[in-house]
Amino acid sequence: MNHADILITNGKVVTLDANDTRISPGAVAVKADHIAAIGPVKDLETWQADTIIDARQGLILPGLINTHTHSAMALFRGMADDLPLMTWLEDHIFPAETKLNTGMVKTGARLACAEMIRSGITCFCDMYLFTDAVAQATREFGMRAVVGEVLFDFPSPNYGPIEKGFEYTDSLVRKWAHDPLISIAIEPHSPYLCSPELLQTARKIATDNGINLVTHLSETQNEVKQIQEKYGCTPVEHLAKLGILGPDVIACHAVVLTENDIALLKKYDVKVSHNPQSNMKLASGIAPVPELLEAGICVGLGTDGCASNNNLDLFEEMDTAAKLHKVDKLDPTVTSAREVLNMATIDAARVLGMDSKIGSLEPGKLADLIVIDTAKPHLTPMYDPVSHLVYAVRGSDVSHVIINGRLVLENGDFTDIDFKNVADEVHIAVEKILMSQEHIKN
Amino acid sequence: MNHADILITNGKVVTLDANDTRISPGAVAVKADHIAAIGPVKDLETWQADTIIDARQGLILPGLINTHTHSAMALFRGMADDLPLMTWLEDHIFPAETKLNTGMVKTGARLACAEMIRSGITCFCDMYLFTDAVAQATREFGMRAVVGEVLFDFPSPNYGPIEKGFEYTDSLVRKWAHDPLISIAIEPHSPYLCSPELLQTARKIATDNGINLVTHLSETQNEVKQIQEKYGCTPVEHLAKLGILGPDVIACHAVVLTENDIALLKKYDVKVSHNPQSNMKLASGIAPVPELLEAGICVGLGTDGCASNNNLDLFEEMDTAAKLHKVDKLDPTVTSAREVLNMATIDAARVLGMDSKIGSLEPGKLADLIVIDTAKPHLTPMYDPVSHLVYAVRGSDVSHVIINGRLVLENGDFTDIDFKNVADEVHIAVEKILMSQEHIKN
Repeated sequence: MNHADILITNGKVVTLDANDTRISPGAVAVKADHIAAIGPVKDLETWQADTIIDARQGLILPGLINTHTHSAMALFRGMADDLPLMTWLEDHIFPAETKLNTGMVKTGARLACAEMIRSGITCFCDMYLFTDAVAQATREFGMRAVVGEVLFDFPSPNYGPIEKGFEYTDSLVRKWAHDPLISIAIEPHSPYLCSPELLQTARKIATDNGINLVTHLSETQNEVKQIQEKYGCTPVEHLAKLGILGPDVIACHAVVLTENDIALLKKYDVKVSHNPQSNMKLASGIAPVPELLEAGICVGLGTDGCASNNNLDLFEEMDTAAKLHKVDKLDPTVTSAREVLNMATIDAARVLGMDSKIGSLEPGKLADLIVIDTAKPHLTPMYDPVSHLVYAVRGSDVSHVIINGRLVLENGDFTDIDFKNVADEVHIAVEKILMSQEHIKN
Repeated sequence: MNHADILITNGKVVTLDANDTRISPGAVAVKADHIAAIGPVKDLETWQADTIIDARQGLILPGLINTHTHSAMALFRGMADDLPLMTWLEDHIFPAETKLNTGMVKTGARLACAEMIRSGITCFCDMYLFTDAVAQATREFGMRAVVGEVLFDFPSPNYGPIEKGFEYTDSLVRKWAHDPLISIAIEPHSPYLCSPELLQTARKIATDNGINLVTHLSETQNEVKQIQEKYGCTPVEHLAKLGILGPDVIACHAVVLTENDIALLKKYDVKVSHNPQSNMKLASGIAPVPELLEAGICVGLGTDGCASNNNLDLFEEMDTAAKLHKVDKLDPTVTSAREVLNMATIDAARVLGMDSKIGSLEPGKLADLIVIDTAKPHLTPMYDPVSHLVYAVRGSDVSHVIINGRLVLENGDFTDIDFKNVADEVHIAVEKILMSQEHIKN
């Protein structure tokens, strides 16, 4: 007699393993923090479990992985939209950010974690200020994350001068070294806000500690123009020359790329985080994702922060990614549902360097998984689970979420997050933010 | 003492009237089929009502209006994706459509109505076969719709030769003439599937009966090429020359347009149904919506059919429309949230020629309205209701739907649709459809 902590049964299991194994009706047994067994329901009938979840013929799949966000910016959701980029930043976002402190960032991160869990995200990669507060909120709500303190040439409201930023990152690495859920990355903001020296120090810290280097890269035409004027090359070429690029680099956005840029990203096995909705809303451009995939570059999906999206829903992001490149290339066969689902799961895990542990359902992997309730009009009928996951499922269809073996969402309800408390905290923070805004809407 | 049938109170009322009136906390009183009063909560305190709905500080707004769909194609949701257009049509959609009959179309329309009601759509404009079945299903589920039988040069599985198609349309007009919810339109498929004679007869029927003429127009580059080769002009110019265009024409898609086409659409006050997600998924192209708006042409949003979307969610469609044109024009100020919300409400009502009756919340207008539950992580905080409606709300956030004064969705549950029955019917239909498919997925 086998024993599991949690047995999820009576579902269509979409494993996303290398053989694209699907099992229906299937079951998954979770023991401590990992997946103990996966198979047809009849093969797992002998398993006993403390908690049995009936997937009611819905879908069981790996938790989604958000490869780029600024979680605490959930506080700025819908504060200002439809504005020229510099007006948006200088009149709204930057003034609001001057009001931030460690408590407000923790509140924003809590809000973002609640939203992400509710819509089936089990792991995210974050870039923001006051990162220890982000890590604490993430840990408190039981999510998995790669987090890092954003570094740039000018003084930070958190750490002050850049030397202190390196020290702060180092202290994060040491503090969270043995945490089962939190990993630390070094996160220079971008080639246009970071000197070559800053970037090279970041590179050394990444290598010395075996951690990811996360940066914005080639997000807008304006950025590329700036770097061209300053360094006589593209942002990607600039990083290549400085010796920054490598398989541990997560390049966020990667919208404006030359053929040579793509060749360099491939050569150094750089990972790309694709954020289509943010790139659309800010009018940054359309990343050449079909070309990146064709070149064999690993691409994961990200939501970016709430201020430019305005939500953290990877199901929407998958739908948009699949459709956007079709219309951009005038070819309905590019970025297939299967490819896009990979970008939110196993390929997103590769982006974070965590694909041996998460991103697919396989015995021995960590138990990060979700259940989709498909007994709904917009998911009826179902010919192909993968088509539905990309083109029809919404974040609100997620009924259960398990992270690191722990049930954090059950029948659509948080198991121990008190969302009303979070909302109350948010409203106090919003009062402070509104004081920073000249143009207040009703 | 005033008396209402339904009083919705304690919400943020977004009226979408000409003054963009917003009332918070506000209330709406519904009497029989119409809106009896709107105002601040304190002004409606003296109203008594049989049913009182607490909006719990959520949003109260007009029901969304879907200006173009093929509702019964909900049966084909996710049947085939990511294929070249002709493979998709010839190997999947057309074979499946040969299996259709009046019963299956009714089932498909029921499924679509359930989905649309659940996501806050109160009125839609439909084009399909076996239209009387669509009208019956719509009526049965209490939705408002403009429906019509698709007409083309080749024999129809429903009516046979085109002369019978005109007779069928005529019989629909007579049968549904005095229905409070159903309106009939004449619906020639498109310039490429309809002869000039067919189009001109349709024009005459529209004029004689005072009904809308709905047609696909300039959806793809290939269509424009075909019409150019056959008639030496664009599809829009072709219809102008034939005397088809007028303020009662609803041109669906309008993706591939010249400057002269836009001038003609404006000259004849043609209404446009914009279907961004379908145009993206089928790789048709990006409609020049900012140019259409700039020219003063009335644009409404549509989902198109489920086979090319793959759901009927106008909240997703608003989000996509707002973002798509920003990235297409590399300008974050185009298609603002306010403009896009109009496209799903009051401007959509104008598209259907029903703006004196629906599309905004005003005393005397028909009571088609919805309530959004905003007490959710992805809608917290809320600086601006309009931003949230376009960029953050999902169809699943709709808690209440009232159509023609009747409560059809209450706290997210249908008041009298038995969805399990609908799903059972759908699964029987799907068995027949699968027999038409050579390539069956799991």
